Amino acid sequence: MTNLAKVLKSIDKAHPESLTRLFELLAIPSISTDPAFAADCQRAADWCAATLTGIGFSADVISTAGHPMVVANDRPKPDPDKPHVLFYGHYDVQPPDPLDLWKSPPFEPRIATEKGNGKVIVARGAEDNKGQLMTFLEAARAWKSVAGELPVNVSVMLEGEEECGSPSLPGFLKKHARKVTADYVLVCDTGQWDRDTPAITTMLRGLAGIEVIIDGPNRDLHSGLYGGLAANPIRTLTAICGSMHNAKGKVTIPGFYDGVKKPSAKQLRQWNEIGFDAAEVLGAVGLSLPAGEEKHGPLEQLWSRPTLEFNGITGGYQGAGTKTIIPAQASAKITCRLVPGQDPDAVLSAIRSYVEERIPDDCTVSFKGGHGSAAIGFDTNTPVMKAAAKALEDEWGKPAVMMGCGASIPIVTDFKARLGMDSVLIGFGLEDDRIHSPNEKYNLKSFKKGTRSWARILEALATP
Amino acid sequence: MTNLAKVLKSIDKAHPESLTRLFELLAIPSISTDPAFAADCQRAADWCAATLTGIGFSADVISTAGHPMVVANDRPKPDPDKPHVLFYGHYDVQPPDPLDLWKSPPFEPRIATEKGNGKVIVARGAEDNKGQLMTFLEAARAWKSVAGELPVNVSVMLEGEEECGSPSLPGFLKKHARKVTADYVLVCDTGQWDRDTPAITTMLRGLAGIEVIIDGPNRDLHSGLYGGLAANPIRTLTAICGSMHNAKGKVTIPGFYDGVKKPSAKQLRQWNEIGFDAAEVLGAVGLSLPAGEEKHGPLEQLWSRPTLEFNGITGGYQGAGTKTIIPAQASAKITCRLVPGQDPDAVLSAIRSYVEERIPDDCTVSFKGGHGSAAIGFDTNTPVMKAAAKALEDEWGKPAVMMGCGASIPIVTDFKARLGMDSVLIGFGLEDDRIHSPNEKYNLKSFKKGTRSWARILEALATP
Repeated sequence: MTNLAKVLKSIDKAHPESLTRLFELLAIPSISTDPAFAADCQRAADWCAATLTGIGFSADVISTAGHPMVVANDRPKPDPDKPHVLFYGHYDVQPPDPLDLWKSPPFEPRIATEKGNGKVIVARGAEDNKGQLMTFLEAARAWKSVAGELPVNVSVMLEGEEECGSPSLPGFLKKHARKVTADYVLVCDTGQWDRDTPAITTMLRGLAGIEVIIDGPNRDLHSGLYGGLAANPIRTLTAICGSMHNAKGKVTIPGFYDGVKKPSAKQLRQWNEIGFDAAEVLGAVGLSLPAGEEKHGPLEQLWSRPTLEFNGITGGYQGAGTKTIIPAQASAKITCRLVPGQDPDAVLSAIRSYVEERIPDDCTVSFKGGHGSAAIGFDTNTPVMKAAAKALEDEWGKPAVMMGCGASIPIVTDFKARLGMDSVLIGFGLEDDRIHSPNEKYNLKSFKKGTRSWARILEALATP
Repeated sequence: MTNLAKVLKSIDKAHPESLTRLFELLAIPSISTDPAFAADCQRAADWCAATLTGIGFSADVISTAGHPMVVANDRPKPDPDKPHVLFYGHYDVQPPDPLDLWKSPPFEPRIATEKGNGKVIVARGAEDNKGQLMTFLEAARAWKSVAGELPVNVSVMLEGEEECGSPSLPGFLKKHARKVTADYVLVCDTGQWDRDTPAITTMLRGLAGIEVIIDGPNRDLHSGLYGGLAANPIRTLTAICGSMHNAKGKVTIPGFYDGVKKPSAKQLRQWNEIGFDAAEVLGAVGLSLPAGEEKHGPLEQLWSRPTLEFNGITGGYQGAGTKTIIPAQASAKITCRLVPGQDPDAVLSAIRSYVEERIPDDCTVSFKGGHGSAAIGFDTNTPVMKAAAKALEDEWGKPAVMMGCGASIPIVTDFKARLGMDSVLIGFGLEDDRIHSPNEKYNLKSFKKGTRSWARILEALATP
């Protein structure tokens, strides 16, 4: 029996304990965006470090200006005859609200059965990213226990601010570059092509986010006594935000599309052949029609066109019933998904200018946030990519699809820009995992076969 | 010494006890729009009935489908030789939020000193309407204690749903018409012209309110995985609401201005002569420019032009930081101030049509609320109006201004339409009372001289 065969057997046998460990991590409400959960983020970091130590890594929890970073190494010094990989994951999660739509408390993980998916793990973070990162750690655990060492040199870096824009990351990478620099990075934060088909993601959209806050009167006013006279910030906000798209779904902000490249004819042909069913994807969330730019196909809209989305809007009376006021303030949270060629800072600057030019005399505007990361794409023909694809095919019995992704993983851009490292993006998420939504889940099959996949990939990467 | 002189003396002497009673009422958080405060509304009604009984009225608390109505009479049967007036007030208040802007808890009334205003009573409802209604009750108390009876027959009706659209009122007026029908109505829910000048309000704007709720995907979606494909309800809501006014402040909804009458040349001249300083009124709330229709003057915008205001807007992520979702729902609360000639139902129907015609295929719209009341105006040359004006002039040493008002008191319309009763609107509020806003106040002078004014008016109305 080869080492790999023993490792895979060990993974199958240890599944109940693996699941228990994942549930421990899922029970910690490590919501990074909300300062009220800072202690829980620290707790999640400590848990990850202890778990890595238990596997046989030497692990540190390194504090930052925000939530701490966990960094670990499998060997005291890298073996110079083996490749050195850095595994990246994040232990923080999105806020669970709206809470009333959860069928069970978001931080009390449970197993449920779902039509089409079989058994699933339900909790905030079940997929994104706790379930996914644990597939790698459990594969590493099996290798260490069976073979005493990992097939390649492995460093691990687990972040606690991925869901809130990674404010501490650039500084951390600068200060601790030596601790985390490897030959390349493995990231488990993406999805499969479908339930039965693995995938490597080779293109990611970028992200630029900003909050627009419009102030009018210095307090909420009685709409009878001031209505007709006083400027209403909601009126200004809706007029500005409501004009950011035209009727055909195109963003109207001057300069927004600067640098955007048209996909090659070959790429468009591949995407057409891939069998993407927009009606099915949209039907699953209660929709029917692609809402992006009319003149681009659905997969093009998703993988190669930038978006401007309103993530939240608020202003004035928020309670039940009526309150006849003119509010003092209104605000909107906006994020843009970017594609290769777009400069996040230029996009944010274009949004700020667009808003500023439309603020009437009696309102003022301020902005919060304003961080961004560029889109990125990787060569699919390298030996590492091919080895990883082969390992995935061995596990799943089908070739891995090389796919694009509409989402953003800013750190992948940072690893390339700051440390010169390419990334290999392999994940086991599915379209219906409800990440960032109530009742997030991760198929038990994703967790099991994901762990087995990493065991194979780790071996394949030793001799790509 | 005349009875009136004795009554005025008694009012001055009893001021501390009057204030204690007002503070008792202010301490009850009778927020009618929020079902969580239903018991407090009942408590406020009971307090009013007990207070009226203490003055010498026979008082009943009459339950409705919503909050109860308090009805009281000063005599077992009206004296046929005297006029019969109905005093109307409301014991309910607006919600106090945003709570963090209050300098002291809204339901812990206190006396403060303010530059220009001297001593003021600070609490939610200090003016609207608890402070105002108590001026009448304290005047009635003084008359009863000094003269044993009131100069005219007085019935009192205190409502508990004025701040939430008076849903139970039409049914109540129909069922209990005999209990509340009098020769005319006295209402103390309006303001003075300025600190030193009393006023009778002879024109009120109407009110029509509706909530627009737009649904898109069946859950919040990850903006990376769906952005570009999925319809965003905030995008739809802002596009629709943001197009409801043009750049010159005019409402663009077809039919919105149907029936609106231009004020007469004489009325416009009076308004010009009245010395309204828009810059001063707006300056006090941090603004500078009239924001209504450009081609109408400020007082015209306020008293004779309808408005469409956004009172609240909400949708998607409401917490701190960023959440990269496409929300399932977004909604806006809208109220319109109406002027004579407009039909509230027609206005609401025009808004509904405007929204429905603009909903894209993948969104749906629903509406909440949708209640309205027409604007109203009264003849200023009746003996009753003249007698009331004279009594005010006696107290304040300056003639009362006959003025319009941008706000709405729907019950005044109902009294006219359902029971044929005109109203006399006399109040002692000031522009800077911050009603419906944090730190609502009522000048101690308003409370004292308001009580004295009613004592004079009650006598004047006996022989108009």
